[in-house]
Amino acid sequence: MSELRKDPVINRWVITLDDKSFKPQADSKIPANLSDKDSSCALCPGNEDKTGKNILSVNDPDGKWKVRVIPNNHPYLRVETPLKKKGVGIFDVISGTGANEIIVDTPLHNVDFDKMDVSRVVDVIRTYKDRILDLKNDTRLEYVLIFKNRGERAGSNSQHLHSQLMALPVIPKKITEEMDASKEYFNFKKRCVYCDLVDNEIHMKERIVRETERFVCITPFASQTPFEMWIIPKTHASHFYKLSENEEADLAIILKDSITRLNKALNYPSYNYMIHTTPVKQQDIDHYHWHIEIMPRVKSIAGFEWGSGFYINPTLPEEAADFLRKV
Amino acid sequence: MSELRKDPVINRWVITLDDKSFKPQADSKIPANLSDKDSSCALCPGNEDKTGKNILSVNDPDGKWKVRVIPNNHPYLRVETPLKKKGVGIFDVISGTGANEIIVDTPLHNVDFDKMDVSRVVDVIRTYKDRILDLKNDTRLEYVLIFKNRGERAGSNSQHLHSQLMALPVIPKKITEEMDASKEYFNFKKRCVYCDLVDNEIHMKERIVRETERFVCITPFASQTPFEMWIIPKTHASHFYKLSENEEADLAIILKDSITRLNKALNYPSYNYMIHTTPVKQQDIDHYHWHIEIMPRVKSIAGFEWGSGFYINPTLPEEAADFLRKV
Repeated sequence: MSELRKDPVINRWVITLDDKSFKPQADSKIPANLSDKDSSCALCPGNEDKTGKNILSVNDPDGKWKVRVIPNNHPYLRVETPLKKKGVGIFDVISGTGANEIIVDTPLHNVDFDKMDVSRVVDVIRTYKDRILDLKNDTRLEYVLIFKNRGERAGSNSQHLHSQLMALPVIPKKITEEMDASKEYFNFKKRCVYCDLVDNEIHMKERIVRETERFVCITPFASQTPFEMWIIPKTHASHFYKLSENEEADLAIILKDSITRLNKALNYPSYNYMIHTTPVKQQDIDHYHWHIEIMPRVKSIAGFEWGSGFYINPTLPEEAADFLRKV
Repeated sequence: MSELRKDPVINRWVITLDDKSFKPQADSKIPANLSDKDSSCALCPGNEDKTGKNILSVNDPDGKWKVRVIPNNHPYLRVETPLKKKGVGIFDVISGTGANEIIVDTPLHNVDFDKMDVSRVVDVIRTYKDRILDLKNDTRLEYVLIFKNRGERAGSNSQHLHSQLMALPVIPKKITEEMDASKEYFNFKKRCVYCDLVDNEIHMKERIVRETERFVCITPFASQTPFEMWIIPKTHASHFYKLSENEEADLAIILKDSITRLNKALNYPSYNYMIHTTPVKQQDIDHYHWHIEIMPRVKSIAGFEWGSGFYINPTLPEEAADFLRKV
């Protein structure tokens, strides 16, 4: 039996099935037997001359880097480009002003978060924060999007774990959509929709993957893809970059745990995650609540789905959560 | 140099590059040397007993079918399911009521529109219309989405040319977005944004792929992917199913031509197309204009793009149009 489920935030309907025969699609897995260093990998220690200069580096007491941030070799956007907005006929154009950075999450070539100490995941999270805090000083920029492409199906050609950052002179469409819809909900109910969602899921239990003191990881009710997960702060917070030290540690625990469960459940699938947070120029707001969306890339997106914004998910989120809790 | 371009209809920004080094990603091509009949193909003549019964069949004078419509073997939605809408905690759910049909575009196993007579493409277009006209009698249904997945990267496992239909009890998100944005434009300018777009493109010329008496094929200014094309009626029309006979013939010419150019330019890439049209229950409206969006699947969608709704297109639409005009 299929049903249509509506995302509680944005106006997106998903057909959910309980298709036990669904198998993840062929994936170019990162080999399990990699060594911790690859001399041909530009992100490995010793090859720092193959990349642009460090924008930021987090070092251990010996002076070796634990996390480093470098410019993308072929940046889509550059801070050097002067900001210019113009009309061309009926169209609107903005210069390619912004930043496009690579965050090398670890010096080790062969690990994901599941094999890293929580303290090392904290270093990565703190690096995300630091980069947002630095880039928000550039008043031309409206949004800093942090995301990860892991594995070929997710759009990455590197085996070495890394995250990416795009600083943009506009707010991405999905964020605008979520903010507009959250505002409408707030105007109607005088509550944040994400706060309501967290309360509801903790009460209902069936879509909870993991709960920590400050965060919850759920499989969303109207998941677009099998094993989609959202990590949401339990207490209202609009800006990711305002995480306290305690919150950083707690987030590292649940992020590492979520990726560990995903890797065990689906045998190291390609996946994306991204941080959805309030635009840098905005103050704290009551209606928008930052969160991380994790998307395993186990099912290709067909024309119907992409062209209509209407997804078909063969795996019930409740079954996925149950499976992820047990691995 | 990169720039950010805004889609004139919906609030979507795309980074466009002029990356001459861009190569389409590996694609599982449909072999060029197929024969016109495959005894193992359920869509080929002679194997009609392998599929559900015909919903509709267009026959030639000898009684052989030219186009046939069958139910999807594993339908996501069924007309037999009673329509039920309910709340589950804070969530909204609708029963899986609807239809999911396969339109077999041709009896020949080894052709795309480029190898078919225009009259045969007219048969397909008329079949789309007839199915919408029939399904709109079911007042539980809000939308009939017609689309094509061609090739593995586009989500199809069959070599035999076919289209699909999903009749839905809700309006897909992308359509709602386009309609809302078009309405806002209309309220402001008292003109249809698609009419303005057609006028602008015919005037500017550089993104025109082909023009017929009644239609234009363009590469949209803020194309999400390389070689994206839109076919738009030159005169305002909100409902696809209201096409006149003359318009059907003209649409068949430009649709065949567009697919032919695409296949020549990119050597038979995987592609999707879909018809964006006004919801079946609505009267003719001034602000929404039906059109067909054609999306070659030559670039994978990374997390950044999917999660943010912010696309990176390595090929300038003006260059793509120039290339498509010349093939």
